[in-house]
Amino acid sequence: MIRYSAIGAVGYVCGEMLRMMVAHPEGKLVNVLDSFGVGDSIAEHHPALRGFYDQKIMDLTDENVKATAEASDVVFIQVPSGDVPHWADIILAAGAKLIDIGADIRFRDVSVWEKWYGQKHPEPELTKNAVYCIPEVMRDLARGKSVIANPGCYPTASTLGLQPMLKAGHIVENTIVIDAKSGYTGAGRRPATNKILTEAENNFCAYALGGGHRHTPEIEQNIAYITGRDLMKPETWQYINFQPHLLPQVRGIEVTIYATLDRDYTNDELFELYDSFYKDEPFVQVYPASKPVQTKWVYGTNFCAMTPTYDARTHRLIVSSVIDNIGKGAAGQAIQNMNLIMGIPETTGLMYPAMYP
Amino acid sequence: MIRYSAIGAVGYVCGEMLRMMVAHPEGKLVNVLDSFGVGDSIAEHHPALRGFYDQKIMDLTDENVKATAEASDVVFIQVPSGDVPHWADIILAAGAKLIDIGADIRFRDVSVWEKWYGQKHPEPELTKNAVYCIPEVMRDLARGKSVIANPGCYPTASTLGLQPMLKAGHIVENTIVIDAKSGYTGAGRRPATNKILTEAENNFCAYALGGGHRHTPEIEQNIAYITGRDLMKPETWQYINFQPHLLPQVRGIEVTIYATLDRDYTNDELFELYDSFYKDEPFVQVYPASKPVQTKWVYGTNFCAMTPTYDARTHRLIVSSVIDNIGKGAAGQAIQNMNLIMGIPETTGLMYPAMYP
Amino acid sequence: MIRYSAIGAVGYVCGEMLRMMVAHPEGKLVNVLDSFGVGDSIAEHHPALRGFYDQKIMDLTDENVKATAEASDVVFIQVPSGDVPHWADIILAAGAKLIDIGADIRFRDVSVWEKWYGQKHPEPELTKNAVYCIPEVMRDLARGKSVIANPGCYPTASTLGLQPMLKAGHIVENTIVIDAKSGYTGAGRRPATNKILTEAENNFCAYALGGGHRHTPEIEQNIAYITGRDLMKPETWQYINFQPHLLPQVRGIEVTIYATLDRDYTNDELFELYDSFYKDEPFVQVYPASKPVQTKWVYGTNFCAMTPTYDARTHRLIVSSVIDNIGKGAAGQAIQNMNLIMGIPETTGLMYPAMYP
Amino acid sequence: MIRYSAIGAVGYVCGEMLRMMVAHPEGKLVNVLDSFGVGDSIAEHHPALRGFYDQKIMDLTDENVKATAEASDVVFIQVPSGDVPHWADIILAAGAKLIDIGADIRFRDVSVWEKWYGQKHPEPELTKNAVYCIPEVMRDLARGKSVIANPGCYPTASTLGLQPMLKAGHIVENTIVIDAKSGYTGAGRRPATNKILTEAENNFCAYALGGGHRHTPEIEQNIAYITGRDLMKPETWQYINFQPHLLPQVRGIEVTIYATLDRDYTNDELFELYDSFYKDEPFVQVYPASKPVQTKWVYGTNFCAMTPTYDARTHRLIVSSVIDNIGKGAAGQAIQNMNLIMGIPETTGLMYPAMYP
Repeated sequence: MIRYSAIGAVGYVCGEMLRMMVAHPEGKLVNVLDSFGVGDSIAEHHPALRGFYDQKIMDLTDENVKATAEASDVVFIQVPSGDVPHWADIILAAGAKLIDIGADIRFRDVSVWEKWYGQKHPEPELTKNAVYCIPEVMRDLARGKSVIANPGCYPTASTLGLQPMLKAGHIVENTIVIDAKSGYTGAGRRPATNKILTEAENNFCAYALGGGHRHTPEIEQNIAYITGRDLMKPETWQYINFQPHLLPQVRGIEVTIYATLDRDYTNDELFELYDSFYKDEPFVQVYPASKPVQTKWVYGTNFCAMTPTYDARTHRLIVSSVIDNIGKGAAGQAIQNMNLIMGIPETTGLMYPAMYP
Repeated sequence: MIRYSAIGAVGYVCGEMLRMMVAHPEGKLVNVLDSFGVGDSIAEHHPALRGFYDQKIMDLTDENVKATAEASDVVFIQVPSGDVPHWADIILAAGAKLIDIGADIRFRDVSVWEKWYGQKHPEPELTKNAVYCIPEVMRDLARGKSVIANPGCYPTASTLGLQPMLKAGHIVENTIVIDAKSGYTGAGRRPATNKILTEAENNFCAYALGGGHRHTPEIEQNIAYITGRDLMKPETWQYINFQPHLLPQVRGIEVTIYATLDRDYTNDELFELYDSFYKDEPFVQVYPASKPVQTKWVYGTNFCAMTPTYDARTHRLIVSSVIDNIGKGAAGQAIQNMNLIMGIPETTGLMYPAMYP
Repeated sequence: MIRYSAIGAVGYVCGEMLRMMVAHPEGKLVNVLDSFGVGDSIAEHHPALRGFYDQKIMDLTDENVKATAEASDVVFIQVPSGDVPHWADIILAAGAKLIDIGADIRFRDVSVWEKWYGQKHPEPELTKNAVYCIPEVMRDLARGKSVIANPGCYPTASTLGLQPMLKAGHIVENTIVIDAKSGYTGAGRRPATNKILTEAENNFCAYALGGGHRHTPEIEQNIAYITGRDLMKPETWQYINFQPHLLPQVRGIEVTIYATLDRDYTNDELFELYDSFYKDEPFVQVYPASKPVQTKWVYGTNFCAMTPTYDARTHRLIVSSVIDNIGKGAAGQAIQNMNLIMGIPETTGLMYPAMYP
Repeated sequence: MIRYSAIGAVGYVCGEMLRMMVAHPEGKLVNVLDSFGVGDSIAEHHPALRGFYDQKIMDLTDENVKATAEASDVVFIQVPSGDVPHWADIILAAGAKLIDIGADIRFRDVSVWEKWYGQKHPEPELTKNAVYCIPEVMRDLARGKSVIANPGCYPTASTLGLQPMLKAGHIVENTIVIDAKSGYTGAGRRPATNKILTEAENNFCAYALGGGHRHTPEIEQNIAYITGRDLMKPETWQYINFQPHLLPQVRGIEVTIYATLDRDYTNDELFELYDSFYKDEPFVQVYPASKPVQTKWVYGTNFCAMTPTYDARTHRLIVSSVIDNIGKGAAGQAIQNMNLIMGIPETTGLMYPAMYP
């Protein structure tokens, strides 16, 4: 049995995690905490969970976090940027493991975080003990560890789509362009005029246009990791373009990855390369060029599906990679990481098909 | 008064053209012809047009086309690939002008058409007399002409987004990547399983993955035109990546254009460059980097809106350009071309704001 | 030329009115006023209107309203419940006509308003001079008047769907049930969690469940008017059930009206009855039983379309009636009322087909 | 272990059943059969099921059905109206139990079926052995039986919403009106112009307007059953109005039920009545008047959620009841019925929360 708790109760990621954990044979929820909705039932904020959990939302205080951590094996945390270290200290001191859904401890070199997140990092030491983990990329680093930085949604889809070719070593330096699209759950639950159905529906747009999105350096760090660069020397990384857009849909990320190659492939060879690379990964599905992946195929799941292709005219690799941004892109991967650090099969509680249609 | 007719009655483009022409002070519909729905009222297929037109759909026969063309100043035509020349001969002989919505006469070098459309061109001569015309790019070529090739939707959004920088001359050869997204009206009105709401909604995917979409060479021809290459020598053109996707929405195209530049810009300089370039174009709207354009801003219109930005880290221009695929991307531009070749102001009947929200 | 102004600048109804007025050959905008967004351009809040209006939003002060009214023939007003009288006094004193989009002056007997809107009416006298006007029902009352209460969206669709049979006199007392559905523009533009795309999309629900919606007595007053009851004696009106729901779409209201009849009809007879009744009404379209109306047929218009049917098994009339809630349901009808009181043809600027699809 | 098979492989109901059965600890799929897609993998038609089932679609022949039934405990069948008896004879002879998703055996009096489905019933005898079963209404009839008629989607939501008050006995005869709305999965997977996203999205309409929908008599039979009428004498049943509409969403049915009562209730009393009635039903959730149910709360589940209210002005009960049309409305209830007739807990494999948002 794995006793788990969640800090950050009312957001979509917590809701999705609790939904997924209903099917997890080992998980047992201890507490959910937040500074919003204190005292409310979980179902008040996540109506689909009526009847599945008895806990009320507990106030986010030092005492409550301490007591919760003492009673838990793992604590998931999603709080505003910069707030994690305070809670992490309490949680770790109480002997629980920690999985951070946010970005506070994702960068080995905190100066990267400070630059892109525009804050002084409150506790660089915490980052040293943290392991950033997309299991299909660096699961070995995470085994037995206590502090996990759960990856961002876009970086997960992008990194998995790039990895086989990065490992094959045929991407020309500084040619990677990632055009990314996400459903509105990626923009959170807080209401805003641009998010109401009337404005968002039948509408599509870029945001953070021109290169400013914070997931950019996270993808670059992953590329650096895969290609063996020094993660503490960001100046040696290659730069990429990462350009996000908002899709008029609830869930789903698609990234289309463009990169110039230094050799030619047929689409069949490329499929073979990718399919072999991921043949033992239960959560990665590779499709041939004739089957471009669709976000709906992975709706509500921990799967990543991708179609790699090659355009011989331009010598560019073009990979379309999809995940559910709050599934594999957040809650699903967090559970996978929990399984990993608790030493049970990674697939536990996660092998369920998408809701389709 | 401009007497006009349309061949291809039941599709979305004809419906949109008839809708827009309600506001056109000069237009007078003569006939609509098709081989589907013969004898039906227009409103049977375009319910929103009830009460606005009296014509019944006339059978698409040589005789009917001849009689129609004799009574018309302009005939719009949208028929399957390769079918235009047969009707064009009849129409032109009858003295009417012709605007082809499709792709039959879009390429100066018919071998490009033959390669990408996989057919032998039935009448290469017709192409010689045809003028491909995005008015904001090559309106001077079209004045006084009788045969217009109306541009494709993606090429319109892409070419307008590229033009100022192509003219400025700072795009590095062979670095252009266009990631394009279109609503489902772009996929036509014929029913198919992947287009029904249950499958298409909350779903996003690439199609023609890896470089095979037919609008690719059309954009390349436009780039070649703007940069002064020989349109009859496609081997001298630069190659681009054009990768389309399907958006879960009705109307709207967004293209995100990436290109490496050989000099740096600030976003303000870039805005200035683009805004000045289009300052006399009533249908092009340029926004600063802080305002990424949205497809809904141009819903149902002949406008193209764009936001040019520059990522100094990667030395790449990133432009987001939006149109309504059946507005500026088809029916609107066809009307603009009609105005142009009939010698009336291009804006006639087209200066109406988008339906928002 | 009609000089008009609008109080309440940033909401959807004002945006739609300004959009529609672009096509109005007589209208000339003087000012828009609001206490939000003061000093902003109109396009800042209604991006589709970029380039169509020069006015900035003027602060909603007594002085500005006075100056505006003095320069205007008509002022449209949409402010919170109970606030109209204050502004109305200033506007009328300045010699302008007034069209209230809201509900402050919709009821002849202010006690009905006070009961359903839960406030003391600030100025019952104003109501006496006001004329509530759905032109297809009571246009004669409005001619030459200065104060118009523009009807609610649901009451417009409901009343037009009931009117022919109410006039025919065969509805059994107290058997009317109206099941109504509206798109989210009906819920306004202010952001709220239940309105964001992620929660609203793929979702449908009733609201004000059990009979409490404020449009109920407005429909009852209209029924009383049509059937010749005393509008000052609400105790003599018949009660109806009016139950609204929220549709996961932007625009569109559909009401399904059920009423027991005291005689039988065939569907053909019913069609004939309705079609004859509305044969001179340019904005009402009647369809036979085989063609249930769709909200999309009237998207962005001032039309009301309806299909009347009869179920002989249960002796019930079943009418499906659709409008665009911010078109005929608000802005369109307000313009129609403006045309009416200014003595120009009601259809001026409004005879445009729906955006379809 | 329960060995099960499915006839009718490519439709949404089969896809949903296979999706739900992934979580069922006892189920083991034997075969899927269809006359479409023969030889295809299941994932070819249900992409979300990739990796979950190995079976190929088997041709729908007498031999294959016989062999399948011999190897199965239960066979689910969904075939065109009138085709069930042929296959049922083979399946039952082979010793398997049968659950019909369609309507062939739903009526005790076959003349009702013949009238509403417009066909001569091919095998009235089969109906005699069949048990129509909404478990929350008549589970006792089904225990130990071999032939189950799985209820229709609308009748399930409607009957559950009516049952407590029908049992309480306070509905005035012949006053029931049901206004029903369904997402497009209810219209099946076969493509049609009115179902493509461009036409269906942002659109709402009634269909079968005026009383002709086939689910009407099914609801009437259920009412007759609950109120103790003779199911073999339809002339003694009370008539209802059942009017369906199409929602622009994938899944979800909402029915708003109106009925005049012969006594008054407060909303609290009504909540108490309904909540007590269903207190032991794990799949029925009752909400108070302040919480109108939403279709999204039950997305992808076997739950039915409802909010009963009372309008004292009109003496009418108004109940809003929601289900997922292919969950509790088809596949979920079929699995619940399978559990029931196989003698295992009804909730087996079905207690999972909705996908929200």
